[in-house]
Amino acid sequence: MNLAITKEEVEQILAENTFTHYYGFQVKELGEGMCTLKVPFHEKLIRPGGYVNGPTLMSAADVAMWFAIMTKLGRTDMAVTTELNTAFLNGARREDVYCRAEILKMGRRLVFGTALCTNAKGRKLTHHSITYIRPET
Amino acid sequence: MNLAITKEEVEQILAENTFTHYYGFQVKELGEGMCTLKVPFHEKLIRPGGYVNGPTLMSAADVAMWFAIMTKLGRTDMAVTTELNTAFLNGARREDVYCRAEILKMGRRLVFGTALCTNAKGRKLTHHSITYIRPET
Amino acid sequence: MNLAITKEEVEQILAENTFTHYYGFQVKELGEGMCTLKVPFHEKLIRPGGYVNGPTLMSAADVAMWFAIMTKLGRTDMAVTTELNTAFLNGARREDVYCRAEILKMGRRLVFGTALCTNAKGRKLTHHSITYIRPET
Amino acid sequence: MNLAITKEEVEQILAENTFTHYYGFQVKELGEGMCTLKVPFHEKLIRPGGYVNGPTLMSAADVAMWFAIMTKLGRTDMAVTTELNTAFLNGARREDVYCRAEILKMGRRLVFGTALCTNAKGRKLTHHSITYIRPET
Repeated sequence: MNLAITKEEVEQILAENTFTHYYGFQVKELGEGMCTLKVPFHEKLIRPGGYVNGPTLMSAADVAMWFAIMTKLGRTDMAVTTELNTAFLNGARREDVYCRAEILKMGRRLVFGTALCTNAKGRKLTHHSITYIRPET
Repeated sequence: MNLAITKEEVEQILAENTFTHYYGFQVKELGEGMCTLKVPFHEKLIRPGGYVNGPTLMSAADVAMWFAIMTKLGRTDMAVTTELNTAFLNGARREDVYCRAEILKMGRRLVFGTALCTNAKGRKLTHHSITYIRPET
Repeated sequence: MNLAITKEEVEQILAENTFTHYYGFQVKELGEGMCTLKVPFHEKLIRPGGYVNGPTLMSAADVAMWFAIMTKLGRTDMAVTTELNTAFLNGARREDVYCRAEILKMGRRLVFGTALCTNAKGRKLTHHSITYIRPET
Repeated sequence: MNLAITKEEVEQILAENTFTHYYGFQVKELGEGMCTLKVPFHEKLIRPGGYVNGPTLMSAADVAMWFAIMTKLGRTDMAVTTELNTAFLNGARREDVYCRAEILKMGRRLVFGTALCTNAKGRKLTHHSITYIRPET
């Protein structure tokens, strides 16, 4: 398996990026066209009702897909999100979340994939459909 | 116009809530089944490339719809988001964003609406379709 | 208003196309970046429970958006649907349906718009978010 | 595996229903919380450009999910679709299509699942996210 980006490079992107840094995302797995992030529990992510807030999980899905695309195209290809659809299935209580994104279609112009957030026990929290558009060549 | 919640009450919810507080959302308009929030520009909301990050706008849409529902049902009704679909139309540069949400259907169990984020000149940034489920009675 | 396609040309497309012909779609209005279709009630469109079936309304939304795009780009530009999100708000009983589609963003590569199906009294039936991709130039 | 509905009962529903009858759907597999339908190629399903039309595939996804729910709840439970999101990945040429739906969350009120349409070689054609609402008890 020769990925177009290494786990170390992805971790560096996470560290450099103020926004992902805020969420504390960690790379758990990187494979061809897939990526799993860990979202470690943190009190600041809690919204009223005691659940991890939704934007955190949507952001995890978006970033995990971004890295999944990088495993195919490398860091230089600046694809951007055009569509992100989220279904909220179960609330994440005070617990770590895992978000696994995978590419279903790598087109010349559009990339489509799905992501699923679960807790450590595999309880499904959110499901996402994500479309990225690749830069013009 | 007799709304089930006042602008002052909504502003208090924004102030009390750590999560919305982070984004600095402000209530611009509150009407029957609608709400417009302002997202004042802040450097911390910028993602790589110089744009306001997507989760901020998705969060604005979600919160604006939440308040739109409160204008009908008041504060006590704890509806929660079940689906949030976002299309990214144009990037928000270093500028304030306005997010207007409105209810299209207030059902006994589900509430459906849309939200549109624009900049001060009306340039469309993101479009959202949002479904909330009401608590069982 | 100088549209890139006329109502007569659009009606000819509807008549020539076996698929839209099946549904009996009629053009009610054509404007810059918008189109309203009428879906005349027909017994064959009814699904169990006595409602007009969902695919008919999704098809109306898709075709109305296709024509809305043609008002900008003319008939030759063969844009295709990449995403179609539908929320079912109320069932259409044995009645005509009107579907109004409008473009929110006409990009160089992607076109995004929404469509709303209603009955003659304005009762909201379905809401759609639609993305088309334009052919490469 | 004790499903709440048998393959024979599902085939009877397909035969009785004018709408699904039109498409010629066939049940290929029925399991706990899942269903695979076959959409046999037929000339009448072709839209301009020589592809199977989108509403046919959206309808297959919707019906496959309906049957997946019946494997859990039986025939009497009249759940209805509230949301159906579709991504078009590749066009179906003059070929049979297979649509596999599976439930990701069976809630007391909402059921959420995904469906994937492929051709006989496994080429991905469409991806769907589907929400049903269960009748009030």
